[in-house]
Amino acid sequence: MNDKLKRLKEILAEIDDLGRAQAVLSWDQQTYMPPGGAEDRGNQIGTLARLEHERWVSDEMGNLLESLSADQFDPDSDEAALLRVTRRNYEKHTRVPARWVEEFSNATTLGQEAWVKARHASDFAQFKPFLEHNLELRREYSTFFAPYEHVYDAQLDDFEPGMKTAEVQEIFKQLRAEQVELVRAIAARPQVEFGFLYQHYPEQAQWDFGVEVITKFGYDWNRGRQDRSAHPFTTGFGQNDVRITTRLDANYPGTMLFGTMHECGHALYDLGHSPAHNRTPLSSAASMALHESQSRMWENLVGRSLPFWKHFYPRMQQIFSSQLGNVSLETFYKAINRVQPSYIRVEADEATYNLHIMLRMELEIALLEGSLQVKDLPEAWNARMQEYLGVTPPNDAKGVLQDIHWSGGMMGYFPTYALGNLVSVQLWEQINRQIPDLSEQIERGEFGALLGWLRENIHAVGAKYEPQVLVKKVTGSKIAPEPYLRYLKAKYGEIYGL
Amino acid sequence: MNDKLKRLKEILAEIDDLGRAQAVLSWDQQTYMPPGGAEDRGNQIGTLARLEHERWVSDEMGNLLESLSADQFDPDSDEAALLRVTRRNYEKHTRVPARWVEEFSNATTLGQEAWVKARHASDFAQFKPFLEHNLELRREYSTFFAPYEHVYDAQLDDFEPGMKTAEVQEIFKQLRAEQVELVRAIAARPQVEFGFLYQHYPEQAQWDFGVEVITKFGYDWNRGRQDRSAHPFTTGFGQNDVRITTRLDANYPGTMLFGTMHECGHALYDLGHSPAHNRTPLSSAASMALHESQSRMWENLVGRSLPFWKHFYPRMQQIFSSQLGNVSLETFYKAINRVQPSYIRVEADEATYNLHIMLRMELEIALLEGSLQVKDLPEAWNARMQEYLGVTPPNDAKGVLQDIHWSGGMMGYFPTYALGNLVSVQLWEQINRQIPDLSEQIERGEFGALLGWLRENIHAVGAKYEPQVLVKKVTGSKIAPEPYLRYLKAKYGEIYGL
Repeated sequence: MNDKLKRLKEILAEIDDLGRAQAVLSWDQQTYMPPGGAEDRGNQIGTLARLEHERWVSDEMGNLLESLSADQFDPDSDEAALLRVTRRNYEKHTRVPARWVEEFSNATTLGQEAWVKARHASDFAQFKPFLEHNLELRREYSTFFAPYEHVYDAQLDDFEPGMKTAEVQEIFKQLRAEQVELVRAIAARPQVEFGFLYQHYPEQAQWDFGVEVITKFGYDWNRGRQDRSAHPFTTGFGQNDVRITTRLDANYPGTMLFGTMHECGHALYDLGHSPAHNRTPLSSAASMALHESQSRMWENLVGRSLPFWKHFYPRMQQIFSSQLGNVSLETFYKAINRVQPSYIRVEADEATYNLHIMLRMELEIALLEGSLQVKDLPEAWNARMQEYLGVTPPNDAKGVLQDIHWSGGMMGYFPTYALGNLVSVQLWEQINRQIPDLSEQIERGEFGALLGWLRENIHAVGAKYEPQVLVKKVTGSKIAPEPYLRYLKAKYGEIYGL
Repeated sequence: MNDKLKRLKEILAEIDDLGRAQAVLSWDQQTYMPPGGAEDRGNQIGTLARLEHERWVSDEMGNLLESLSADQFDPDSDEAALLRVTRRNYEKHTRVPARWVEEFSNATTLGQEAWVKARHASDFAQFKPFLEHNLELRREYSTFFAPYEHVYDAQLDDFEPGMKTAEVQEIFKQLRAEQVELVRAIAARPQVEFGFLYQHYPEQAQWDFGVEVITKFGYDWNRGRQDRSAHPFTTGFGQNDVRITTRLDANYPGTMLFGTMHECGHALYDLGHSPAHNRTPLSSAASMALHESQSRMWENLVGRSLPFWKHFYPRMQQIFSSQLGNVSLETFYKAINRVQPSYIRVEADEATYNLHIMLRMELEIALLEGSLQVKDLPEAWNARMQEYLGVTPPNDAKGVLQDIHWSGGMMGYFPTYALGNLVSVQLWEQINRQIPDLSEQIERGEFGALLGWLRENIHAVGAKYEPQVLVKKVTGSKIAPEPYLRYLKAKYGEIYGL
């Protein structure tokens, strides 16, 4: 038995090495690779991905998992968890036929190319046949996991292990109603002042300030680094090398600042996994929502909070004295928290963001169920935008074509963004109960206790528990909308005088 | 037959992908990786190397090579060359037992650690047992390729395919005698002025000038990039992504300048391989000497020549006006070409460099033959230094412990540096016959015809021919010492007024 577990861990370590190597190649592609490298790089990543896949579906893996049962171990042990997670991954890899994987890979490559052109031309019709093909393949994907309660379950499960569509729908139902109402109330109030954010802020000074902030957060530069890329991301090459990227807008410091804090939150999660789990699938996030809860916590609950800026604003004023010297802390705080219903998800504020997400999930479900045809998607999109946010996109580029996800055949991912927001506040309430002076600590620029709590309760646990199990273990209840709604109402009640 | 060749190429492409992926991981390790990443990175590179090795020694590879004969193709065809080179690599991989590979890997890891400490303490005794173990393993390596004419043949053949020890010894015999004599004659002459090179040259200005130079050489930034590293190197991630690194010394611009031109020379070679050879072992240098011939050509025959500086010196004076404004072209040219017998190989000039190399090769052979004991190595080293260069190292750190090669179990590599110098001039004479106005072109800052010649005759050919075959094909004779000796005598005769 021990020999078999040892052999399983060897294979998992090899799989981990292959995955991490792909991550390095992909990081390089997005940061430093000269344009000429693209074609060969595609082949190299493709080969590594294939070798990784071959190990997942190998007979040896199947035989080892058959002879090793989680029941043989303490249910709460790392060994039992490792076998659960490994078996789950094995199922995912083996149930999906190679034929589908290849067709999906080809379809989504073409889909992304078509999407880039369609978005550029703001013409959904160009993208329609590709989306139809992707949708067909996603529908087929669900059949590999039949029987299911809901056609969306298999999509969601890839990102939120164990979570069901019905659970998310239940959560979103309450969330949507109350967030729509809140956004309407805010929209009826006078807008806060924010024009001063949109002026020249030298890029190097922005970069240095961002570095200063996340160094205080506890990001360890001996175990990570920050580079520039077109789209910010976090990537881990092992237990002690988790890197982030950011982007800079010389005429708006928020892009860099909140992006850097967001990615730092992701990185702190990956840097906090237990060394005992290294090179196994347990050295990973519990789910995408949990990952997003960490990035959103540092970006929003810390980085857009008044205590944070009580500490950092004098420093920021010192660096950008000509831009902010005459702007009060209160004015600045309100500006970075202004609510403004808009067309574009990635630019959305905390009050409107989830509405963009819920719209997408509802449309994904309608498409998969067949109650909505692809041809009718732009209309359905615009109608919901009007209903939830009170705005109608002027064209497809600013509407249904704005996100890359569907062009790459990704469905079931969107809900994790909103769930991440909810989890971040649910954890935050628990942290504040256990660290009653957290606000005062943040006001002093101290983040050690916060990071320590997260490490112990979330980061070190890795993927040992499914997301709902972990959230309940830590906060006493499963993922719920109430904490986030309480948070929004309190924060914006004050800012907009509701 | 076509199916088998096709399958062989598939496996070779996979092997190529695995090798290139290791190169990316290693490049990152030497340029951007935070310190924490080292341990996991070692595992990742180790796994990829093992997977690559498994493919080389696989039964499928053996069977394919058995059923595919080079004789079935035109001897001058790419197919015949591919089968020759692949069979050669297969032999190298299969003759060496896994047991030896593992022991060698462990021994050299320990050897390098011991060497770092011994060099730091300048104490050869600390390194002695590790070198003895490495030497034992290198001796055993030769036995895997028995019968052989000379115990050194198998060492050399890894870097100079098909070349024999006796051939190199014959070449070096003449070279050594005449170079020793030349260096003595130069040492008897007054030294040229060079102190102005050793003052502050701002790093960014150095970097920019280096970029300007190699851009003129034809280095394509869409297919490469330059970064900083502790030791400069060139690495290729595919046909269209070949990168270089350089290092900077704020108090001596030569480190960056000649290093950058040297690495650019390597990179131009790799960038010029035939697209038809991509992802096969033919997309590679003919040998290490050929590779070095390209780097040394751009570094020395171009970069330390008078025509080159007639073009670039006014620009350099403009950039570094306070340092060079009052230094004449002639004075500058002599300074960067000064000859100074010294202890350290990597700092050696064109006239003394080969002597460092020949000393090392002679000692390697004596050690492998058993005519020299490891314990007597420092003494033998110092005696030869005195004989060839007229200097005796003051300690082991500046003598026998200066190079990393032996600590990593690398033997047979040193001669390629000197052979590269010889080949560079042998090609240069041929190029000048075919491009009679080459000097004038260089004086005008034009390098297109030179690069075009190299691409056609050397770069595009890749590893299709063994080095001696290629050199003879292009220049009419095998690698020979005369052109290099002619070059040295002419150049230094003028500079030192011999």
